[in-house]
Amino acid sequence: MTPEQIVTELKALLDDGKVLDDPENLDHYGRDWTKMHAPKPVAVVFPRSTEQVQALVRFANEHRVALVPSGGRTGLSAGAVATNGEVVVAFDYMNQVLDFSPSDRTVHCQAGVITEQLQQFAEDNDLHYPVDFASAGSSQLGGNLSTNAGGIKVIRYGMSRDWVAGLTVVTGKGDVLHLNRDLEKNNTGYDLRHLFIGAEGTLGFITEATMKLTRQPDHLTVLVLGLNDLTNTMDVLQTFQKQIDLTAYEFFSHEAMQHVQTHGSVQAPFETEAPYYALLEFEAVSDQVMDDAMTLFEQCMENGWVMDGVISQSETQAHNLWQLRERISESIAPRTPYKNDISVIVSKVPEFLREIDDVVTHHYPDFEIIWFGHIGDGNLHLNILKPEDMSKDDFFGKCQQVNKWVFEIVERYGGSVSAEHGVGLIKKDYLTYTRSPEEIAYLRGIKQVFDPNGIMNPGKVFDLD
Amino acid sequence: MTPEQIVTELKALLDDGKVLDDPENLDHYGRDWTKMHAPKPVAVVFPRSTEQVQALVRFANEHRVALVPSGGRTGLSAGAVATNGEVVVAFDYMNQVLDFSPSDRTVHCQAGVITEQLQQFAEDNDLHYPVDFASAGSSQLGGNLSTNAGGIKVIRYGMSRDWVAGLTVVTGKGDVLHLNRDLEKNNTGYDLRHLFIGAEGTLGFITEATMKLTRQPDHLTVLVLGLNDLTNTMDVLQTFQKQIDLTAYEFFSHEAMQHVQTHGSVQAPFETEAPYYALLEFEAVSDQVMDDAMTLFEQCMENGWVMDGVISQSETQAHNLWQLRERISESIAPRTPYKNDISVIVSKVPEFLREIDDVVTHHYPDFEIIWFGHIGDGNLHLNILKPEDMSKDDFFGKCQQVNKWVFEIVERYGGSVSAEHGVGLIKKDYLTYTRSPEEIAYLRGIKQVFDPNGIMNPGKVFDLD
Repeated sequence: MTPEQIVTELKALLDDGKVLDDPENLDHYGRDWTKMHAPKPVAVVFPRSTEQVQALVRFANEHRVALVPSGGRTGLSAGAVATNGEVVVAFDYMNQVLDFSPSDRTVHCQAGVITEQLQQFAEDNDLHYPVDFASAGSSQLGGNLSTNAGGIKVIRYGMSRDWVAGLTVVTGKGDVLHLNRDLEKNNTGYDLRHLFIGAEGTLGFITEATMKLTRQPDHLTVLVLGLNDLTNTMDVLQTFQKQIDLTAYEFFSHEAMQHVQTHGSVQAPFETEAPYYALLEFEAVSDQVMDDAMTLFEQCMENGWVMDGVISQSETQAHNLWQLRERISESIAPRTPYKNDISVIVSKVPEFLREIDDVVTHHYPDFEIIWFGHIGDGNLHLNILKPEDMSKDDFFGKCQQVNKWVFEIVERYGGSVSAEHGVGLIKKDYLTYTRSPEEIAYLRGIKQVFDPNGIMNPGKVFDLD
Repeated sequence: MTPEQIVTELKALLDDGKVLDDPENLDHYGRDWTKMHAPKPVAVVFPRSTEQVQALVRFANEHRVALVPSGGRTGLSAGAVATNGEVVVAFDYMNQVLDFSPSDRTVHCQAGVITEQLQQFAEDNDLHYPVDFASAGSSQLGGNLSTNAGGIKVIRYGMSRDWVAGLTVVTGKGDVLHLNRDLEKNNTGYDLRHLFIGAEGTLGFITEATMKLTRQPDHLTVLVLGLNDLTNTMDVLQTFQKQIDLTAYEFFSHEAMQHVQTHGSVQAPFETEAPYYALLEFEAVSDQVMDDAMTLFEQCMENGWVMDGVISQSETQAHNLWQLRERISESIAPRTPYKNDISVIVSKVPEFLREIDDVVTHHYPDFEIIWFGHIGDGNLHLNILKPEDMSKDDFFGKCQQVNKWVFEIVERYGGSVSAEHGVGLIKKDYLTYTRSPEEIAYLRGIKQVFDPNGIMNPGKVFDLD
């Protein structure tokens, strides 16, 4: 079929005005936040229902047209990029909350519901959707689930996966499956729900999801600690976890904090200058919890793990302390950071981080390295900043070389080359550093079962041969 | 191959004395708790390592010998029963804790570790493994994971699935896969770990697992409430959940409690006789939580939802109140109960339970029905007691007829025919009441990918055609 024929046929399947093929929209909807590939789809379509998605998949099978799903396009691994004459299926018009059950504490959403919209819906109903991250204002639920998004509250609330009661998907064969029926307990054969979560749209598209909600957190309190040494991050974590349920345990380097301070009007947490900082959050539901936290803090000081610290006394103070961590990404954005999203088991973090830091600084002494991340989950964001006098091409080329060293260390430590961003196009070549050849053969076998014609987001995560 | 040849070959693969084929052991290891099928394996083997399991699977593929996994044999759906000349692979000698990391709060176990052994190991290390159920003293970790076991603390701690950091499996093709590398965050392609959990050994055998642990619960306090009406169970649940993190929300009928009282020396919780009872458990970490609980309790009384109630003032009292719920199964055991394990979404529980109760009592007015279960998860155990003057065969025959009515109601309510016991042989014929024909076709496709010769626990969950 010619592109023109495809567009004509698609228009018959969807509502008026819901098929676009002008250059501007093809460019806009063919990209995510990575912007490293030139987009080249033939059309962008906006289905309004699961039935319309099913019609699109059947059409795509019949004519062997490739489909690429598109949510909020905030992806960081080019998982939703269309570079090769695909049809982009954008979920922007499937943005309705379809049902809400207060006694089940579940909300049934279309895949295009924006994360922040879901968070707000929960709050309006005196409940809480706890998955949260920097792109929550744009990212869509379908994309979150297809990458099993994590974020800043994983230590307490887990990943997106943990909040899914049920899924509606259209498989690559065009079947509509209602997975898990929103049940809390259901042991009837393989749990296909968990197979679709994190599959980056390569087995089929998630069109609807029933998400669990929880009670709102109470008296959230933030503690920022200055640490002498990286290994102390683990000592402090263990000490607090024994007594207090942390809702966050984040980490950033002094260099990261300096960028935040230079960039905006954010104050240092205290006068003492520390090489590393940890941010702890917990619910101070009673005076006793607050007393416990103070005792643990003093214990950490006495042990020499902590140089200084500050604890929030109000919601405003808690919010302000969070800025130290949350504004890092935007502060370094002007410096064209090359981002890596790696993980190891928590106890190996200090050694792992040091080894990578050494390798990168040894080979590229001019590169400025900014570390921050979800250290309580073993997830580190390694950001390399472009030296001002280096060209972008030169810089990204050098970062590709860095990648190999970094991923060799990741492999040696038994870690992951993608903790929460997914694989997409960008990390496909590095998948073998985390998954064995045998595992990848099974991934291909599963793909074949759900998408025998290879039309669903082809070329993402792994190649078919 | 003749059975004798199989036994000879197996002996070459394993340690001395780790292949048995005497009638007594074949009978013992060929069954689980269901005892509804005559066991008929050709041998029982006891591997000591993942490598030996791999050797067994390779042998089984070469000679097309079927393998049945065997853990603590506490299953209630005949998932680990060998009726057809299979080799039983018993994990009793793979019962070692291989590694423990306090700072990761993970413990690496062989599949034959007994649930209680894991719970005790955690406690000895000032930590907690929270998955708990009646058969914890016998059930093995591999079996728990293969059925994604739930139990009495799901409302707070989730299912077995939620505590798995990593798995080692031997697939039906004989590959050893190390799944998820014990990482908290790892988004690198399909999560095969979740596919093996709940697969009842039909894709391969779980040989090792790294389990997460958590902090020990603090000041566990139990509240038992007498309820006027079933719908009040939901009102009470919602009221408490808004303010308190419950660790359990269980339910039992007056009839269930009467059996416990008749059976043992357990006291009624209070003088008021109520048709239904709810048992709530939470951590009373401060006086304030206790005050909150009392306020909520009074609120429930004022609303007319609760007739009477009692709250534990000590660990001993909490333990005693739990007996009311925990001793139900053993109390009714002499009455040859026919057990069903069904679930719906929580809000539908009262209506669902009433409808099933009506149907069963209408058709079989002589049957005594005992209801109890994990109502906070929508999971109900329907127990039908054999009238004393009815033969076992006659009784079980009639229960099969009851099944059809029950499962038709389950289907109409969008529920599950197996909330936590699994499918095995016993519920295979009813799988279509919860999974669609399209879903089952995908289950078969996945089975084909991992076990192309159909040698892993064949005939369980679904048939191959």
